[in-house]
Amino acid sequence: MAEKITPRSENYSQWYVDIVVQSKLADYSPVKGCMVIRPRGYALWEAMQRQIDAMFKETGHSNAYFPLLIPESFIHKEAEHVEGFSPELAVVTHAGGEELEEPLVIRPTSETIIWSMYKKWIQSYRDLPILINQWANVLRWEKRTRLFLRTTEFLWQEGHTAHETEEEAVEETLKMLDVYARFAEEYMAVPVLQGKKTESEKFAGAVDTYSIEAMMQDRKALQAGTSHFLGQNFARAFDVTYQTKEGKLDHVWATSWGMSTRLVGALIMTHSDDRGLIIPPRLAPTEAVIIPIFKNKNKEEVVGYARKLYDEMKSGFRMEFDDDDANSPGWKFAEWEMCGVPIRIEIGPRDMESGKAMLVRRDTGEKESVEIGEAAGRVRELLGEIQTSLFEKARKLREEHTHQIDEYEKFKVLYEQDGGFADTHWCGSAECEAAVKDETKATIRVLPFDQGTVEGKKCIYCGKPARYRAVFAKAY
Amino acid sequence: MAEKITPRSENYSQWYVDIVVQSKLADYSPVKGCMVIRPRGYALWEAMQRQIDAMFKETGHSNAYFPLLIPESFIHKEAEHVEGFSPELAVVTHAGGEELEEPLVIRPTSETIIWSMYKKWIQSYRDLPILINQWANVLRWEKRTRLFLRTTEFLWQEGHTAHETEEEAVEETLKMLDVYARFAEEYMAVPVLQGKKTESEKFAGAVDTYSIEAMMQDRKALQAGTSHFLGQNFARAFDVTYQTKEGKLDHVWATSWGMSTRLVGALIMTHSDDRGLIIPPRLAPTEAVIIPIFKNKNKEEVVGYARKLYDEMKSGFRMEFDDDDANSPGWKFAEWEMCGVPIRIEIGPRDMESGKAMLVRRDTGEKESVEIGEAAGRVRELLGEIQTSLFEKARKLREEHTHQIDEYEKFKVLYEQDGGFADTHWCGSAECEAAVKDETKATIRVLPFDQGTVEGKKCIYCGKPARYRAVFAKAY
Repeated sequence: MAEKITPRSENYSQWYVDIVVQSKLADYSPVKGCMVIRPRGYALWEAMQRQIDAMFKETGHSNAYFPLLIPESFIHKEAEHVEGFSPELAVVTHAGGEELEEPLVIRPTSETIIWSMYKKWIQSYRDLPILINQWANVLRWEKRTRLFLRTTEFLWQEGHTAHETEEEAVEETLKMLDVYARFAEEYMAVPVLQGKKTESEKFAGAVDTYSIEAMMQDRKALQAGTSHFLGQNFARAFDVTYQTKEGKLDHVWATSWGMSTRLVGALIMTHSDDRGLIIPPRLAPTEAVIIPIFKNKNKEEVVGYARKLYDEMKSGFRMEFDDDDANSPGWKFAEWEMCGVPIRIEIGPRDMESGKAMLVRRDTGEKESVEIGEAAGRVRELLGEIQTSLFEKARKLREEHTHQIDEYEKFKVLYEQDGGFADTHWCGSAECEAAVKDETKATIRVLPFDQGTVEGKKCIYCGKPARYRAVFAKAY
Repeated sequence: MAEKITPRSENYSQWYVDIVVQSKLADYSPVKGCMVIRPRGYALWEAMQRQIDAMFKETGHSNAYFPLLIPESFIHKEAEHVEGFSPELAVVTHAGGEELEEPLVIRPTSETIIWSMYKKWIQSYRDLPILINQWANVLRWEKRTRLFLRTTEFLWQEGHTAHETEEEAVEETLKMLDVYARFAEEYMAVPVLQGKKTESEKFAGAVDTYSIEAMMQDRKALQAGTSHFLGQNFARAFDVTYQTKEGKLDHVWATSWGMSTRLVGALIMTHSDDRGLIIPPRLAPTEAVIIPIFKNKNKEEVVGYARKLYDEMKSGFRMEFDDDDANSPGWKFAEWEMCGVPIRIEIGPRDMESGKAMLVRRDTGEKESVEIGEAAGRVRELLGEIQTSLFEKARKLREEHTHQIDEYEKFKVLYEQDGGFADTHWCGSAECEAAVKDETKATIRVLPFDQGTVEGKKCIYCGKPARYRAVFAKAY
């Protein structure tokens, strides 16, 4: 039987770790900062991959694969890029028993190696756009790590596109942010705020970074996907020019965008409770589990009756059937709740006699007894209801903890006490941004797309006229 | 327009490289020995992954993910393993700006890191079997590389299973070899020989290695998948014991098995011709392409007529529609042939007038004119016929070039001239095996499962009584 999960009210961080480890999503590895993604965690990642990969393909992208190792000199070609990533690099200095002439770094992200190839592939406007995505592992040497949320090695996808014009590249950047937002809201049931990052928070090498931000149950923000407009920065660094339709030579325009196994952490933290994992139905590797409840004397009939339902449902649903007699029904209920399966179907002798089945919702614990012939149909409906209700619950939490604040004193109190999103205004100076971070640990998560009117508004820190609407939060 | 492909008769190696590069499956990267898999090549790999992943899941396996980096000391824990892999390791000595206390190697294969975790997860027979597969990149520092066939970094899957008994582990080893063989024959249309490897050719750390071997068009063998019975070697190295049903303590039994992007190379080399790639229909990212043939004056009608067929077929087939007017029909025919699309559907004004469409097979070049209403049905049939016919053609080639040979003089002549598979006998001594390799470059590919009777047979090299039926070939 699973060990006890620390309640959220007692220790939120420990609650999160307990869920990940005890529901066997992941485990610590012998390599510092690297985790092992166990079958249950990987099945969740596969469900997420499958869906978002389909969304990439629908928007015209193809997958490809570029080398893991990058010559160290490549990282140095883009000034901001090297500054941002150098401290986090893992370096291969020896291979095949010899010291390498030039060290190779393990990719922390692949802009440089990919743009070295784009130089080879792009000559004319006829070669554009290039719309490529890569599923890969990347490595960033992190000092403090946390299962899924921040690990030295992580799995992700990184899109890298090349375009004729600035407009087209900006459009692509925003289109992919929208794909992330739709994926988060419609599949993960995680409501997200969209907007632009400030200069200090943007990707090293980008002109503009956009992100989607979600609120976790402890009211901290989690950046759940980013999309970068890279301008001509990498095209210049790697000298990638193309012949325009007018016969001129111009540098190519670029975007990149990524989401990672971090999202598994976001999903867990958004929905789960003190009994374990809660997975939104659209991404659940198992949508429903049937558990026959029997004694030795009636085992055959009850299991047979329950299995008939399983056989009917298994082609239309992702189903499990648990008739293992080594464990008690109570143990199984707790175990399947821990794993986050959205619906449990209990079938005992009395259900059998009355031609019924008991459906139990993982998210609310609500039970309903249904005619066995209507079970499949009702499960279909319930899965939809659970998906919607998880999203609404998360949205309600975010709304309750998003505060319109104009006074810095109130702002400070918020981050000393409850936390949450502070929807406020900012003058645009990096000094004010840094001072707020120093004093409260809250950072600007995004400058929302809907900027409203800033006229007459004042900077939350210095009180000078505001240039931006800005949403602050403490963040993962 | 694609450049000319070197004919096989002129230079088989160059022909292969021309196909890979000109059909844009892959490209050379700036990192020695590492390749870039371009979208067309990756789509082929995805089709292969999707199918074999489904076969793994049908046989009860789950996917998981283990760290890329392995502490160097782990590799040293299994004596044969370290001897086999040490010369090929890439070593990370620095990370996060500091020298590491213990160097980390990039996984050449993951037995060691995985068994260090299995030690944590396995206590009792109730925890067994563990049936895990991993899709990952691995790195082996190779001196001589070739696109897809042998690259420093490659993509693969590696299964790692843990069992209570020797029998169960052996059964698993053979089951997975059978999965590979079915995948190769039924999906890749590549006939394979199955059997056991000799001591000198087995995996470093295995008790027994089994492989499937295919014959390429130049009559060399290519190892297309291996399955290893690891005995208790890794369980001993990592001290993984379990409590048996009888309450005793025993070491766990293990298997591992893998196939890689190398198979993309095998697929190309088996089926393609001097006009480019030929892809078996079941793995073709595009099954058929419709090419309307028009002039300016009739463009609208012809394209409209052709598009109607496309709209009908696209839900049932993986289809492309090429009505680009920047290129001539002849250019398009050559281009889609180069890419290996199994069926081309040409529709010109005369086809339109007579209510027909012209189907052209990529493999044979055969054309047939069909009623437009019957096109989809006929394409379905043809795809099946092409799949079968590619397999039969490859099998015929293998049969023609498999020779029952008992005299070493004839054997030597075979490898000086035509090459192929020599189906012969061997005394079992490593010295004879090594001498044959020295003198002819041919190695024992497998000791086939069907050993026939070796009584009265003699070793091809020393003439002493044979212990094994053995199939030799020069190999990739």
